[in-house]
Amino acid sequence: MPTLPEFAARHIGPRESDVTTMLQTVGYDSLEALIDAAVPQRIRASAALDLAAADSERAVIEELREIAAQNTVVTSMIGLGYYGTHTPGVIRRNILENPAWYTAYTPYQPEISQGRLEALLNFQTVVSDLTGLPTAGASLLDEGTAVAEAMTLMRRASKVADDAVLLVDEHLLPQSAAVLATRARSLDIELVTGDLSDPEALAGGRAVFGAIVQYPGADGEIRDWSTLAETVHAGGGLVTAAADLLALTLLREPAAWGADVAVGSTQRLGVPMAFGGPHAGYMSVRDGLERTLPGRLVGVSKDAAGHAAYRLALQTREQHIRREKATSNICTSQVLLAVMASMYAVWHGPEGLRRIAESVHAKARYAREALVAGGVEVTTRDFFDTLTVRADSAAVVAKALEAGINVWAVDAEHVLLSVDEIITNADLDAVLGAFGVTPVEVGEAIAWDDVHTRTSDYLTHEVFNSHRSETQMLRYIKSLGDKDFALDRGMIPLGSCTMKLNATTEMEAITWPEFASLHPFAPLDQTVGSRRIVSELSQWLAEVTGYHSVSLQPNAGSQGEFAGLLAIRSYHLANGDEDRRICLIPASAHGTNAASAVMAGLKVVVVKTAPGGDIDMDDLRAKIDKHRAELAAIMVTYPSTHGVFEETISDLCDLVHEAGGQVYVDGANLNAIMGLARPGEFGGDVSHLNLHKTFCIPHGGGGPGVGPVAVREHLAPHLPNHPLDREAGPESGVGAISAAPYGSAGILPISWAYVRLMGGAGLTRSAEVAVLNANYVAKRLGEHYPVLYAGENGLVAHECILDLRGLTKETGVTVDDVAKRLIDYGFHAPTMSFPVAGTLMVEPTESEDLGEVDRFIEAMIAIRAEMDDEGSREMLRNAPHTALELAGEWDHPYERMPAAFPAGPKAKYWPPVKRIDGAFGDRNLVCSCPPPEAFEN
Amino acid sequence: MPTLPEFAARHIGPRESDVTTMLQTVGYDSLEALIDAAVPQRIRASAALDLAAADSERAVIEELREIAAQNTVVTSMIGLGYYGTHTPGVIRRNILENPAWYTAYTPYQPEISQGRLEALLNFQTVVSDLTGLPTAGASLLDEGTAVAEAMTLMRRASKVADDAVLLVDEHLLPQSAAVLATRARSLDIELVTGDLSDPEALAGGRAVFGAIVQYPGADGEIRDWSTLAETVHAGGGLVTAAADLLALTLLREPAAWGADVAVGSTQRLGVPMAFGGPHAGYMSVRDGLERTLPGRLVGVSKDAAGHAAYRLALQTREQHIRREKATSNICTSQVLLAVMASMYAVWHGPEGLRRIAESVHAKARYAREALVAGGVEVTTRDFFDTLTVRADSAAVVAKALEAGINVWAVDAEHVLLSVDEIITNADLDAVLGAFGVTPVEVGEAIAWDDVHTRTSDYLTHEVFNSHRSETQMLRYIKSLGDKDFALDRGMIPLGSCTMKLNATTEMEAITWPEFASLHPFAPLDQTVGSRRIVSELSQWLAEVTGYHSVSLQPNAGSQGEFAGLLAIRSYHLANGDEDRRICLIPASAHGTNAASAVMAGLKVVVVKTAPGGDIDMDDLRAKIDKHRAELAAIMVTYPSTHGVFEETISDLCDLVHEAGGQVYVDGANLNAIMGLARPGEFGGDVSHLNLHKTFCIPHGGGGPGVGPVAVREHLAPHLPNHPLDREAGPESGVGAISAAPYGSAGILPISWAYVRLMGGAGLTRSAEVAVLNANYVAKRLGEHYPVLYAGENGLVAHECILDLRGLTKETGVTVDDVAKRLIDYGFHAPTMSFPVAGTLMVEPTESEDLGEVDRFIEAMIAIRAEMDDEGSREMLRNAPHTALELAGEWDHPYERMPAAFPAGPKAKYWPPVKRIDGAFGDRNLVCSCPPPEAFEN
Repeated sequence: MPTLPEFAARHIGPRESDVTTMLQTVGYDSLEALIDAAVPQRIRASAALDLAAADSERAVIEELREIAAQNTVVTSMIGLGYYGTHTPGVIRRNILENPAWYTAYTPYQPEISQGRLEALLNFQTVVSDLTGLPTAGASLLDEGTAVAEAMTLMRRASKVADDAVLLVDEHLLPQSAAVLATRARSLDIELVTGDLSDPEALAGGRAVFGAIVQYPGADGEIRDWSTLAETVHAGGGLVTAAADLLALTLLREPAAWGADVAVGSTQRLGVPMAFGGPHAGYMSVRDGLERTLPGRLVGVSKDAAGHAAYRLALQTREQHIRREKATSNICTSQVLLAVMASMYAVWHGPEGLRRIAESVHAKARYAREALVAGGVEVTTRDFFDTLTVRADSAAVVAKALEAGINVWAVDAEHVLLSVDEIITNADLDAVLGAFGVTPVEVGEAIAWDDVHTRTSDYLTHEVFNSHRSETQMLRYIKSLGDKDFALDRGMIPLGSCTMKLNATTEMEAITWPEFASLHPFAPLDQTVGSRRIVSELSQWLAEVTGYHSVSLQPNAGSQGEFAGLLAIRSYHLANGDEDRRICLIPASAHGTNAASAVMAGLKVVVVKTAPGGDIDMDDLRAKIDKHRAELAAIMVTYPSTHGVFEETISDLCDLVHEAGGQVYVDGANLNAIMGLARPGEFGGDVSHLNLHKTFCIPHGGGGPGVGPVAVREHLAPHLPNHPLDREAGPESGVGAISAAPYGSAGILPISWAYVRLMGGAGLTRSAEVAVLNANYVAKRLGEHYPVLYAGENGLVAHECILDLRGLTKETGVTVDDVAKRLIDYGFHAPTMSFPVAGTLMVEPTESEDLGEVDRFIEAMIAIRAEMDDEGSREMLRNAPHTALELAGEWDHPYERMPAAFPAGPKAKYWPPVKRIDGAFGDRNLVCSCPPPEAFEN
Repeated sequence: MPTLPEFAARHIGPRESDVTTMLQTVGYDSLEALIDAAVPQRIRASAALDLAAADSERAVIEELREIAAQNTVVTSMIGLGYYGTHTPGVIRRNILENPAWYTAYTPYQPEISQGRLEALLNFQTVVSDLTGLPTAGASLLDEGTAVAEAMTLMRRASKVADDAVLLVDEHLLPQSAAVLATRARSLDIELVTGDLSDPEALAGGRAVFGAIVQYPGADGEIRDWSTLAETVHAGGGLVTAAADLLALTLLREPAAWGADVAVGSTQRLGVPMAFGGPHAGYMSVRDGLERTLPGRLVGVSKDAAGHAAYRLALQTREQHIRREKATSNICTSQVLLAVMASMYAVWHGPEGLRRIAESVHAKARYAREALVAGGVEVTTRDFFDTLTVRADSAAVVAKALEAGINVWAVDAEHVLLSVDEIITNADLDAVLGAFGVTPVEVGEAIAWDDVHTRTSDYLTHEVFNSHRSETQMLRYIKSLGDKDFALDRGMIPLGSCTMKLNATTEMEAITWPEFASLHPFAPLDQTVGSRRIVSELSQWLAEVTGYHSVSLQPNAGSQGEFAGLLAIRSYHLANGDEDRRICLIPASAHGTNAASAVMAGLKVVVVKTAPGGDIDMDDLRAKIDKHRAELAAIMVTYPSTHGVFEETISDLCDLVHEAGGQVYVDGANLNAIMGLARPGEFGGDVSHLNLHKTFCIPHGGGGPGVGPVAVREHLAPHLPNHPLDREAGPESGVGAISAAPYGSAGILPISWAYVRLMGGAGLTRSAEVAVLNANYVAKRLGEHYPVLYAGENGLVAHECILDLRGLTKETGVTVDDVAKRLIDYGFHAPTMSFPVAGTLMVEPTESEDLGEVDRFIEAMIAIRAEMDDEGSREMLRNAPHTALELAGEWDHPYERMPAAFPAGPKAKYWPPVKRIDGAFGDRNLVCSCPPPEAFEN
């Protein structure tokens, strides 16, 4: 075996001696023997990973500094949805650079997530207040995909004919238009793009299910869309405004002129441009549409003691139940970035945001007046921050760049100038110089028609009017972070989520200005370093997966799936196989799989699961036979969502290929096979990966994610591309999947650093120890809880499913009770009831050390004893226990000490609330900040 | 009034409207009116502060980036006590960049400081284990001052004649020798420096109270000092080893060859060089000397429930009681840096430290063998990491620099090469190239005589053998931080400590490599940016204080005092006033004042305090009359330690000047008068400032501090200087005060940024609001607790003293009870029993907002009610209450809820232990990590 790199011993939890101990328990002599027994020989990788040798943390940071120096940060006046903004230091340091926030998981266990749930409720309130639409979600992936989600929302919410069209503003941001076009194409939705000032003329008599406008337009113009809204509503359609939240502090809110839906980006609320992402997209809707909102929604409910408490609301919407009937596959959101944007609003408050907006506008007005006075034609009349200027764009772009400023060439004769929070007067004068004009005096007036002026209040809630000093803000952020359980406190053994170490060295570079301050559409020669990260990481991922090409554009696993399935669909179409639309999906698959398939224009056919948890090969053969001519693909996860290395994977691939279908291997569980098996070698044609699982991007409390799609050579021409970046994908590609050319480019240094630090040997060792840790858990807990599935040698893969159904029947104690009781023991629960209801799926990952794994095992054994003891069952049903309740009347049949300190006082975590009643909140939906009185006891 | 800068509203807590509200309570119409009433007209500043206009946080960060770019970071092989080291990312981010650690105060309230106390105990264990001496303190200021402290410790602990001499190794680090010389001069101690291999010859028959050796020597040579130790011990003297801890992982520990004391720096244990500091110095001593150890010492005791708990031990040593009889004025230590160094040892463990040391040695050996093989003479025979090489030093230095490496020219014919953790083989080859030699093959042997080889174990305690993965380390750091109460949780209203905001923007630059990676002796042209910070900050501090010149070298307030008094003494000597040795000190002064005076060779005469708290002017006149011819100086604090603007300050200055004395104005309370009055204008000749109070350097849990000394023009020739940096002070100066030319240069960007962000108007406003906040507290709490002192208009300065003596007499409730009860309410206690026993001194600072100040006031009012209620008094005596005790048997006469949640559940802070029994720990002194069993319940 090659020597392990220095960092491997920091990333991997168990020491060498622990590995020996654990192997003894599992019953193998060596890791190699264990892996040989667990992973089918037929799929084993043909060779060790061919990656550059790993380097030390110090050397990798130095290399990153060299790469960063290859980027050139230039003041950006490009705009187009990405703006310079000042991230308040207190937010950057205490959220973006704080493991308490970035290592948290999605708040599915709300009792231990009250901090970020409150921050997300603040986010929803910001969006809802500024757009005027009462219900806002807890973030979407970016503005482009939010626009696409608005299209499908309007399609399903409107009552117009199936062949109705969508009217699209010709001034929609170009990247949003591209993402929209990609989505519309596969869903057979017709887009009619043009001047929406006369919608009837544009529709040409066809029914219209919706209209999407940019507000203000990409050209900078503020238009009054109230007539459009009336007309579209009259025809039964809906209207979506893609709106700039900062502009909305001054401009009439979309609800006021009739929009049903608002979408956009919250990037400019303090989130770095980061070469395109990650940023939180947003969506808000009018009353009546809240139940069709895609993505997550935070709401207020109450806990078992009757106190107000937050949790995800309406969890039963969309892909969670609808699977192949879903029209959105949104799963991850952008929690970390949404939290940052919400904190920016908390920090500045309504008066601060308004002041920033006024300053932005004043600077734009200054530029316009000087240009006009200098005889330059500005085609934008009513504007907030952006001007379209008639000029020799090549000359102006070049001259502005000499002065250190990027402006945008719309075409040969038009330049776009966008002003933001951080543009200085010196910048403005410099850019005026590029047009050959000199500054003039301007007054304080606002440069738009009165009809556009906002008259309503916003951000009146106390939280936006309380934290103005840095000390107050620091304490608010700290108090929220203290409520939550993240990886910095203990293990988060969530099956299928791979909550491994997010090392500081991996995280470090993302906040360096060289990476954080790049506009995604900056010229190629300014972004050499970031492009090198993209290119090297793509190559390394191709090597790890055994595929030919990788696109990093998809900014979530769901988007990677969608891109992969589009590639398959596009490939069949290119071959003239128009009818190959059937996508086989095993019953055990993640709901997202089916939703993505539908979005890609495929039809889902479910393949049964055999009693052992494997795919039912007979049913597979039957389904293939039945649909042979229409077979587009099969989607499988490997190792399976049951946490098992299925022996049948090679046969399955052969069968599907033989029938002319493509094999989609969901890479969600790649952490189990890195360096051991490569999907591109053992039969996959395409996979998506989750960099936020296997490649150490932190979960951020529920995003950002990165979901690259990797394909074999024949599918490479069908990868995503981007209208504004020719390097981002093949010209023959399926179009844009995400708004930015490289999706969440700003966080790719994390995965890049992980691979550089681990090398091939380190990555392989990661997978081996992940499998060892899972089998150790399965072996030790198997005596106390049945382990549901196992492979041929009785081994699991990198996770194991504990089957509580029998115990629940016997004792009445549910998986929910166990999950909440684990909080008392100081743990985040494993994955509940997925993929099988009534079970817990445990994935320890390679990063958890033997001590922590044992602590978890002992907690689970102790809980099993509590289940068996009738006197203790009530304790499980009442879990978790709060410090507050210890101090009050105690009317439980058990003592305080075992309730609150079942594992002793060491590192005790206190949940801030008791068990939360989700159903109550769904019946009484409140999704923006409640009045403070709601929290009185 | 000039417009306040943007940042002022972030730094200052109360909003404009709050200021109005608070002024109403205090009874004034405007801040100006309040200040006019509070601050005596005679001392008011002649003009507004003349500082550059304040800039935004973004602009200041950009300016800092430009300044940083003026530094050139070059690989350092200079050594001489400062070494390249890799700060583990997990330590840097989660300690050095984490407000939970850096905003904490000195752990005087141990119940809410268990996290950093544990880390300091780890530090002590590292030092004690590696040096072999059983008791180590919780850090000293740097190696140079630690050497000086060792001198005075040996002087007082040895039983030899008063005229005995100190033998000093000629191979002592040059900066240590300089600091030692400064200290020895004012204490009239004779140093005999030379070759200590024949101590008797060197002593020439004089009695020897001690010897100090560098181990290994500054020339790199490892010498066996066992014979020296025997000889010195035989004469009744003691031996101190100034030892390199990393070397000690391989070399025989000082205790093993007879050292009584070990001192040194812990910088190379993961703490950046930072242009000289801050770093934690260390000292450890043999049994029998622990009670003379200067500085703080952490020990293990037990809490009221009998659980093991940490606290500062032997608090009654040295200046705390001895005042003018003290021989050390050490007060602040370097907690933040000591914590980092301790965590580096936790992270690497004994095997990791040994591996690093072996690698360092192997690299040095590689260099030596290549040099020797290449015909170059290496004069070092037995070495760890440093070689003295005979060569044309100018030529070699220049050639090495061409290759990007600094080496050290000892003299024209000798070069010093030092190898550290981060030197690479490529660096070595490059430096060999500078000597014109080529690499050779070397073996694995160790290049020293067997007698030097260490044979004993170290770091065997569990804590150094448990946290190897980054996940484990992160959780350990988090669990410790969670135990502590710092400014990120709530107000720390410590009188005389000025616990104000440490803004993120101020903190940001200190970890940039351009500031963090500079060697203090790097060539001038590589350190232009850092020198600019030094120079600008010095000018600004001179403007704020009204003095002519400032030295930033003193790295703690106590050192600034010492430097200021030395300047006075030196001035008198230069004037031929040899006899002017009397230093008048008011009875209310901080103990450090007197200790510093004694160290500076002065004699302390105490001046009485009048009943109102002011200096007794009659007694002053009498003392001046009595000592007129010998009067050297008076030391006063302004505003006084009683928190009052004394009207008599101008008269006092006149009286002293008239008698030929100098006025030392202790600047500890400068925060009350910034922009309002300038000590250099109203009569002071010299002041020291505390940048860690007034100028926003965080307290770091008990250091680093920075204590610049500021003087009028006539004293400027008597400021500190430095043997290795001609720019660091006047040639005529008093010598080196700290090891590094600019003391804690690495953290000066914090204060620099504060001034740049606030400007003159902002600083002035800070002082005004600080005074307002204090008067608001005094006014509102005055109804419940007598306020001890006030000025003419019944106003206090920036703090107020609540007199509990009467209440204690009535109710039996002590200040200690109130302080501990405040923990239950979620506060850090005010300063206890200083300057008057039985009182609490409250300093809210300008950074606390009205809401938090009111919360504190309400807690104090509620506690007053508890004092009055006989049934509740027991609750005060039992405070603080832990979560653990809530869960157990409850045998108190009061309920759990009011005990634990007196202010409701919001942001409840739980102390990890109950009240700690300090005396028990002092009787049973344990000052290194106790076995885990000690923490079993």
